[in-house]
Amino acid sequence: MEELKMVKNIFKTVAVVGTGVIGRGWIRVFTRAGCHTRIYDIDSSQTHKTLDWVKRDLNRDVSDDIISSQQAQACLSLISLHTDLEEALTGAQYVQESCPEQLEIKQSIFSKMDEISPSNVILSSSTSGMDIEDIAGGLRGASRCFTAHPCNPPHVLPVVEMMPTKALDSVLLEKAIDFLSGVGQKPIRMNFFIPGYLVNRIQAAVVREAIHLVQSGVAGVEAVDTVISDGLGLRWAIFGNFGTNNTNADGGIREYYNRFGQTYINLMKELDSNPPDFDKEMIEQIGQGVDTMEGDAPISDICRWRDRMILKIRKLKEQDPHP
Amino acid sequence: MEELKMVKNIFKTVAVVGTGVIGRGWIRVFTRAGCHTRIYDIDSSQTHKTLDWVKRDLNRDVSDDIISSQQAQACLSLISLHTDLEEALTGAQYVQESCPEQLEIKQSIFSKMDEISPSNVILSSSTSGMDIEDIAGGLRGASRCFTAHPCNPPHVLPVVEMMPTKALDSVLLEKAIDFLSGVGQKPIRMNFFIPGYLVNRIQAAVVREAIHLVQSGVAGVEAVDTVISDGLGLRWAIFGNFGTNNTNADGGIREYYNRFGQTYINLMKELDSNPPDFDKEMIEQIGQGVDTMEGDAPISDICRWRDRMILKIRKLKEQDPHP
Repeated sequence: MEELKMVKNIFKTVAVVGTGVIGRGWIRVFTRAGCHTRIYDIDSSQTHKTLDWVKRDLNRDVSDDIISSQQAQACLSLISLHTDLEEALTGAQYVQESCPEQLEIKQSIFSKMDEISPSNVILSSSTSGMDIEDIAGGLRGASRCFTAHPCNPPHVLPVVEMMPTKALDSVLLEKAIDFLSGVGQKPIRMNFFIPGYLVNRIQAAVVREAIHLVQSGVAGVEAVDTVISDGLGLRWAIFGNFGTNNTNADGGIREYYNRFGQTYINLMKELDSNPPDFDKEMIEQIGQGVDTMEGDAPISDICRWRDRMILKIRKLKEQDPHP
Repeated sequence: MEELKMVKNIFKTVAVVGTGVIGRGWIRVFTRAGCHTRIYDIDSSQTHKTLDWVKRDLNRDVSDDIISSQQAQACLSLISLHTDLEEALTGAQYVQESCPEQLEIKQSIFSKMDEISPSNVILSSSTSGMDIEDIAGGLRGASRCFTAHPCNPPHVLPVVEMMPTKALDSVLLEKAIDFLSGVGQKPIRMNFFIPGYLVNRIQAAVVREAIHLVQSGVAGVEAVDTVISDGLGLRWAIFGNFGTNNTNADGGIREYYNRFGQTYINLMKELDSNPPDFDKEMIEQIGQGVDTMEGDAPISDICRWRDRMILKIRKLKEQDPHP
């Protein structure tokens, strides 16, 4: 019955611009850390819907003993709703934009935010697919604009992919990274833009091979999932890829790659590099396998379980950290 | 301070043939479940070294509060050492072979085991790379021979990849699967042989993309690992790939693949499908990144931490199972 332990956060007031699925998660991140969180959406029914979602989600976590009802109340008391952008940004030292993934929308909102807010305010975008240079590279305040792309849901999965514009101000980037670390996230730095960033590229590599395995008929959906959830994924939850490889030989990753490099090269040549079709037939084949595997529980219940399990795993890692 | 809860196991006596790293792990699996475990190696100094390792590993788990010293004693009391194969297999209802990965060695040992042991005894191989058809397909008792390929270490990671010979006896395969489930593993079925099976193919897909990301300069070793350990891997520890994809859209995996199929196709075309070189320079680049990330802890300490963390995560999943 306690929150993930938070380090100090450095900004007292933040703004969340855009209140879709990602924006909501950010509200939970910032309020959990004690930030006054000013929520903006052009549509007031949308901000109210979001507040309802936050309340429901907090109650769910109270029921699941993840937070106390006092903590839930404290989070709610930090929220204010706004339909005027200038008002929403008043006093905010950090802004997290999570509007729809359309370049024109993001360009327009960044342009407005750059005009409105003092030049030392950090403006971050949750974009998962666009280059921040395209969104904000041309603005006077480009150096304070970053991509801060979270995993979904951000209040459960800590990693955030950070990418500056070409006008990069390193001090501001460090400040953004410190802040996001302070509110309990794990910001990591990308040096330049690539499609899919890191998260979605690695995910795509797994999705591709997993679908190929099922489509080839070598094993079913549940078997392929078990290989991850009761094998590879248990290691990946505590290490990443390289940390895992480093424990795959007594002498560490150099010994492992020296010994198995050629085996990997041969195996990698075997993997089918063509994307699956994602046509009706394929989707239905996988869908039916998932139906059988997942049973009757509604997806919302499965997500709730996912969220609470992940928070518990993170707590284990906090209590017994990497030596 | 308790073991992972075991379901009933159906064989009282088993044999472990070959006492390398994988064989040792199997000894821990079988003794933990209460099986009399008869250990064979041609070299008696090797069987004694293995017993020493098992003792050390049990003591380590006692110190880490994973098992009680009583449980450790109980495990040890179930072990007997043999340098005669016929003697080792006496009374064994299930045999797990984990000899070196050389076809001639495995063929020879399977041929001997098939002669020695009654026809209803299951003979499984831990081979990670060979086709069981090549090892045992020509034997009179081919129908009771299977691949049962574990992840390493088997007493920590439950998944086991099961593959029959062409002479498949389905009843025996079910019996082998029931037994391995009974001792706490998660056996999954492969329908035919493919290089790398499932585990190492999915691992290779991740290794390839992770190395490409570092070599391209887009991000460092630690950043790429964080994307997994504090993002993707937290989901993969509780679901596999498809279970995760199923929670990526409110309407489940069909909606997710319908909406993002084209995005995935485009992204998959971006991924570099060539294997990395695994040359000196590449291995040193990654090695240095790992050195910086991992710090000074000896790999044995890191492995010990890995093992205890994974057992804790598995316990979380047992205590709060998928809805």
